[in-house]
Amino acid sequence: MSSLAIINCSQLVTLAGPQRPRVGEELRELSIIENGAMLLREGRIEKVGKRETIEPLLTADCEVVDAANRIVLPGFVDAHTHPVFAGNRANEFELRASGATYEQIALAGGGIRSTVRNTRAASEDELVVSGKRYAEWFLRCGTTTVEAKSGYGLTVEDELKMLRAIRRLNDETPLSYVPTFLGAHVVPEEFKGNSSGYVDLIVEEMLPRVATENLAEFCDVFCEVGAFTVEESRRILIAAKQLGLKLRVHADQLSLGGGSALAAELGATTADHLEQADQSAIRNLQSAMVQPVLLPCSVLMIGSQKYANARAMIEAGLAVIIATDFNPGSSPVVSMLLALTLASTQMKMTPAEAISAATVNAAYSLGRGNEIGSLEPGKRADVVIHDCGDYRELAYFAGLEHPHAVFVNGKNAFSR
Amino acid sequence: MSSLAIINCSQLVTLAGPQRPRVGEELRELSIIENGAMLLREGRIEKVGKRETIEPLLTADCEVVDAANRIVLPGFVDAHTHPVFAGNRANEFELRASGATYEQIALAGGGIRSTVRNTRAASEDELVVSGKRYAEWFLRCGTTTVEAKSGYGLTVEDELKMLRAIRRLNDETPLSYVPTFLGAHVVPEEFKGNSSGYVDLIVEEMLPRVATENLAEFCDVFCEVGAFTVEESRRILIAAKQLGLKLRVHADQLSLGGGSALAAELGATTADHLEQADQSAIRNLQSAMVQPVLLPCSVLMIGSQKYANARAMIEAGLAVIIATDFNPGSSPVVSMLLALTLASTQMKMTPAEAISAATVNAAYSLGRGNEIGSLEPGKRADVVIHDCGDYRELAYFAGLEHPHAVFVNGKNAFSR
Repeated sequence: MSSLAIINCSQLVTLAGPQRPRVGEELRELSIIENGAMLLREGRIEKVGKRETIEPLLTADCEVVDAANRIVLPGFVDAHTHPVFAGNRANEFELRASGATYEQIALAGGGIRSTVRNTRAASEDELVVSGKRYAEWFLRCGTTTVEAKSGYGLTVEDELKMLRAIRRLNDETPLSYVPTFLGAHVVPEEFKGNSSGYVDLIVEEMLPRVATENLAEFCDVFCEVGAFTVEESRRILIAAKQLGLKLRVHADQLSLGGGSALAAELGATTADHLEQADQSAIRNLQSAMVQPVLLPCSVLMIGSQKYANARAMIEAGLAVIIATDFNPGSSPVVSMLLALTLASTQMKMTPAEAISAATVNAAYSLGRGNEIGSLEPGKRADVVIHDCGDYRELAYFAGLEHPHAVFVNGKNAFSR
Repeated sequence: MSSLAIINCSQLVTLAGPQRPRVGEELRELSIIENGAMLLREGRIEKVGKRETIEPLLTADCEVVDAANRIVLPGFVDAHTHPVFAGNRANEFELRASGATYEQIALAGGGIRSTVRNTRAASEDELVVSGKRYAEWFLRCGTTTVEAKSGYGLTVEDELKMLRAIRRLNDETPLSYVPTFLGAHVVPEEFKGNSSGYVDLIVEEMLPRVATENLAEFCDVFCEVGAFTVEESRRILIAAKQLGLKLRVHADQLSLGGGSALAAELGATTADHLEQADQSAIRNLQSAMVQPVLLPCSVLMIGSQKYANARAMIEAGLAVIIATDFNPGSSPVVSMLLALTLASTQMKMTPAEAISAATVNAAYSLGRGNEIGSLEPGKRADVVIHDCGDYRELAYFAGLEHPHAVFVNGKNAFSR
């Protein structure tokens, strides 16, 4: 593999800094190099600096990409997605616009259970085919790594099928996937009234298989009224931890139900959603330095106006993350750019805070803080040239796909 | 000019129907042809129908575009934009995210007056150059016609410069522009405390020049506390009407100040914004069949949660329009796709209602109901192939640029 230089960057937004997630005031420090350039070699970042310090290092065999005064950032790291599913739910989107509630749709056989039916009926190959379409969308929007959850199979074989599809997508697309087992997404129809039976299945059969086949790095649970209680969630997460999986928790989305406290108690890596989290919940996260993953796109798409209290979390010194929550129901959104726009307009995060939350902090939450999330020597060359002159335009000029070129492992994965 | 056929459309969303804007229940009728095809000749739509009725008509010289089971719609008609300006205000976007109010920013010399300073300092050529970049964005997002306002010049020569730039953009890009004179956008600094002097300038100098040089089809006024009173607005709009201009009014955006009543009184074509419009204001619009132009992107981008009451307007039988309000301050958004998403998630318009509002109804409000806004024989061949299988996915898969190919006057203006 030869080397590649990216020159003439109006702003090289490196996010270089201490090797840990960013908290509080640090979130605003993007370590921008104006008129910057960078040298990539063998899929890694070799050197980053002012144009005049990089250009003399270029060798004859070095391919040169002129960013033409555009900005350059690390690829976005989307730390909460459900990117493998069959069918979509545009029909329910229409029903919700017509005034139907999520509960009414679920009663009519829609909602997450319709995606479960479709995903069970789909083959692994079919899930890979649709997943590749979404992978292309993620890359087009500047995302180079996604956390990817199972959770639409809800049988041993269908959950494993989803996780195998995720592994194949990781191998067969330029997008990197970090797999999470979410067998505890919802209690499936066949266990209606017998959630403990389903929890038994997760703990006794699914988790051991997932661990044996090394199909997931994380285990997640939807801890919510109508999904899994705190006690059920605890049982699943403890079992997962004993098998060596790290933990993420869907917490305090629709009600304030103890999910944050559980995440803190078990030392989970992240607590996700948190729209209902109050100061007490935030103190719980702070006590164990659990990273909050905020999902503004799902708030927008379900027509809610209650966003998570990002400012209180930042002020509490938490290493906040924003992610898309891409899924076919509440958030059919792959664009981290739209998440940035919502972070600034709805949650009052500065553009700099939002970008830290979408890159370096997300990378740390996935156990890849030394590998991705910033443009520093030795890290993987996941680099995006955006067609803007200033990083604040990413969120400001909303609704556009800004990437001009996307590089993964130093190789071109998308060009406009 | 030869002919072109677009075949293999999963849904040909024609919006064919009665030759008038759509009201109430009609808004849901999209007149979709499944497995459709269409024939374009000499820049016009010649025939629209099922694939099997169109394909036998293809002649040897006919270029064939295979939509490959994608959906096809008329180009979006964006009936409210401010697409000519110098500089941008990403810095103020950051200040607002940091908690500054619009008023604080204005007091510090920012806000609309900073765009006025920059636009006055820019040459017509410079405005055309930046305008062409935005034209490309509009086309990329599937918009083929925009209403375009002046209003950042606020001197006779600078307002004319803006309108000439709009004329040149209309001539030099594939995007169609419908020009609106908005000299009454804000009272400029040099008339501080003397708004009546500025109104004199508009009525006695600007409007006659605009009319003589045939630079605008519409006159608009920002009728709002801090901008122009109802009395000032009336004086300007009456003068404009006497010169043969049609009328649009920025009404009831930040306060309920009589803008809707004035629009009805003067028989304005549209009243725009209307976030504060109540049932009484809606009855005023209804009494004169003024078309409401709703601008959800500006509500989102300023971080407000108060959207216009679209449902009440639809129920009142009004021919509702949605538009982007593209401008460098409150709505740096060119994407009608994002406007569709907000219409359905925040204003509870069905996807079908939103699409009618973004095409045929908008076309009528611009006096081009017989020319654009639907896919019917004789109309201009402004046609977009979107990379979706169902029209509801346009708003559902939010934050993406869906167009696969855009045709203006039957000629390719964008391809992915």
